[in-house]
Amino acid sequence: MKTKATFYHAGCPVCVEAEQQLARAIDPARFEVEVVHLGTAKNRVAEAEKRGVKSVPALVIGDAPLHINFGAPLSALK
Amino acid sequence: MKTKATFYHAGCPVCVEAEQQLARAIDPARFEVEVVHLGTAKNRVAEAEKRGVKSVPALVIGDAPLHINFGAPLSALK
Repeated sequence: MKTKATFYHAGCPVCVEAEQQLARAIDPARFEVEVVHLGTAKNRVAEAEKRGVKSVPALVIGDAPLHINFGAPLSALK
Repeated sequence: MKTKATFYHAGCPVCVEAEQQLARAIDPARFEVEVVHLGTAKNRVAEAEKRGVKSVPALVIGDAPLHINFGAPLSALK
């Protein structure tokens, strides 16, 4: 079974670069990558927060939130 | 030809977690991942700095430095 990897972003330039560089580099044979734009999918901000996301862009692999560079704090998306 | 991806770290707990979660998730079919411990390979700190690394852990894919969470500033490793 593939491990779920969720890439949360908000469309910012830092987010887009991280998505292009990192989200696409994840091994598709082992991971199921979902890209979530929290600016448009505001109903998923609470989910991201619950999973430990403090800022975007962030990649949550399994239970571990990884914050990549810094685009915007999660609080700015509420 | 595979794209080179370099994961710079310093052995800190944040670094180790990022390595386990992220560096191992990179697609080995498309990327050649090298893990560099800057605490022991001090001669490569200048290289990391030149590639835009400000803190560890960081992953440099091609020309893009991606800082993941925050373990230590690069200045602490000089």
